[in-house]
Amino acid sequence: MNKKILNNPEKVVEEMVEGMAMANPNRLKKVNGFNILIRSKKKQERVALISGGGSGHEPAHGGYVGPGMLDAALAGPVFTSPNPRSVLKAIKEVKTNEGVLLIIKNYSGDVMNFKMAAQKAQDEGIKCDYVIVNDDIAINNPEDRRGIAGTIFVHKIAGAAADAGYNLEETKEVANKAISNIKSKGVALAPCYSPGSGRPSFEIGENEMEVGLGIHGEPGVEVQELKSSREICKMITNNILEKMEYDKNSQFSLMINSLGATPLMELNVMAKDTLELLKNRGLTIYNCYVGNFMTSMEMKGASLTLFKLDEELKTLLNHPVDVSIKL
Amino acid sequence: MNKKILNNPEKVVEEMVEGMAMANPNRLKKVNGFNILIRSKKKQERVALISGGGSGHEPAHGGYVGPGMLDAALAGPVFTSPNPRSVLKAIKEVKTNEGVLLIIKNYSGDVMNFKMAAQKAQDEGIKCDYVIVNDDIAINNPEDRRGIAGTIFVHKIAGAAADAGYNLEETKEVANKAISNIKSKGVALAPCYSPGSGRPSFEIGENEMEVGLGIHGEPGVEVQELKSSREICKMITNNILEKMEYDKNSQFSLMINSLGATPLMELNVMAKDTLELLKNRGLTIYNCYVGNFMTSMEMKGASLTLFKLDEELKTLLNHPVDVSIKL
Repeated sequence: MNKKILNNPEKVVEEMVEGMAMANPNRLKKVNGFNILIRSKKKQERVALISGGGSGHEPAHGGYVGPGMLDAALAGPVFTSPNPRSVLKAIKEVKTNEGVLLIIKNYSGDVMNFKMAAQKAQDEGIKCDYVIVNDDIAINNPEDRRGIAGTIFVHKIAGAAADAGYNLEETKEVANKAISNIKSKGVALAPCYSPGSGRPSFEIGENEMEVGLGIHGEPGVEVQELKSSREICKMITNNILEKMEYDKNSQFSLMINSLGATPLMELNVMAKDTLELLKNRGLTIYNCYVGNFMTSMEMKGASLTLFKLDEELKTLLNHPVDVSIKL
Repeated sequence: MNKKILNNPEKVVEEMVEGMAMANPNRLKKVNGFNILIRSKKKQERVALISGGGSGHEPAHGGYVGPGMLDAALAGPVFTSPNPRSVLKAIKEVKTNEGVLLIIKNYSGDVMNFKMAAQKAQDEGIKCDYVIVNDDIAINNPEDRRGIAGTIFVHKIAGAAADAGYNLEETKEVANKAISNIKSKGVALAPCYSPGSGRPSFEIGENEMEVGLGIHGEPGVEVQELKSSREICKMITNNILEKMEYDKNSQFSLMINSLGATPLMELNVMAKDTLELLKNRGLTIYNCYVGNFMTSMEMKGASLTLFKLDEELKTLLNHPVDVSIKL
């Protein structure tokens, strides 16, 4: 269903960013002339954090700007990386003496543009570094793995570390530890639709699902017959655990993420199935998040993310935040 | 698109409720043998609050069980009222010496079953009363107006009042004051699908929208050509304000609620348009909530709710909560 409530498809990102700032004036401010959201009250004497990418993943990324998480979020055109000039602008808006850490999802456009901006910032004497999130284990080669819903955990861990006074190097280090402990995979049942053309992002049969989806409307790495929640959760959980190092004392945080249009009814059935599967394998789930965290507009489907915790990561995960989605 | 991630359509509500409890063990507990969620830690010496209805409106109602809001939520079959026996069970599970207040949405089944349970509870010596939410101004006759997204504000106000030590009569009174100040109306662009039959809840043309929708998959009170966000928001806002008493000093809380599958991108465009419209009319918006608060599974569309505040309601609206959705 390609119908949308919009005014002008060409201005949708700008209007959305303005709407987010207007709806949350105590928390968010739009940077004039840019589709960048920053905190209304600028952070001081702590590492500043920036994330972002193409639009269409809401509440990512602007919904995660606020105390305990991000300092700025870039909203590029739909499913298209923001340009280096915008990233540099965001860096300058939120920089502190402690430096700036960029949280980049592993897509060639994002990596290129964010790194270019980091380099320019460094050239201008701004302390700036970055981490690259690649939690999507649907892709075999780790270097090509995309950043998907697990990115939200990285926002949370790095945001808590920055708040707790970690310096830039330490914040980067703990973010990278989190990244290496976060694995995700998802399925899609129905595509999303471009706000401009109204075209579906892929074609799919009535009894099929895409397995190993990305979050840019692209199809998965393979097509399978649509299965039950229990079978889907088992397949994904097994896939993820195969790629993880863990033992019987390991503790995990679990995220069940809707790609946009999957009702909470189905996500909670998936939560039951996944939690039972993990319990039957003797694994301990520290906590569980169920909802819309990283979407592809109105795509139907869901991803599972497992995040292996240690004591430091647990402490940081418990750090309070004030952002649009409870985490 | 009628595809769903499920196991057994006949057990979907039970599995969902179990999943919610398993994913939130510190906050929620399922009552054995019933699709009822109660707080893990029972409230003492304060009025207890119960809401609920048919399933399919998630995060309503189980997502609102927790400190600052509800004590119990009933999950009936999809779009079907829970029976009086279940409501009575919920009352007995959470009752305190201060009594129990039921928050009922104005649908004949809910009203009949909840009132019957309240009467039985009273017969057994339990202090029990109720309020009826009817915020949907799409229906002209106030007695027939349905309870839709504005119900969440009633949970919040009554929950805060109970926490603050209001007695049963006072909690009922402030909940009724809130109800008389809350008006909503919505549009639907695409139907939802029954988990059992897979059938769409209504048929709609490619360039049409249903105006004045309910939240049970029913069509709206009229069909119109699909319009822009600005035109939709203007029409609804005007409709709502026509039914409200207010003056230039009035302050409002605004809720932009997705019916399930409407991306945050579109909701935030609607937020911008609505906030601008209200500002241009000289009205003051105290705060604004944008998200999935009261849904019809994967229905595409959105509702707007205006809640006129006074000092008491503002204080209660600011009361902290610990529930699944930030409010």
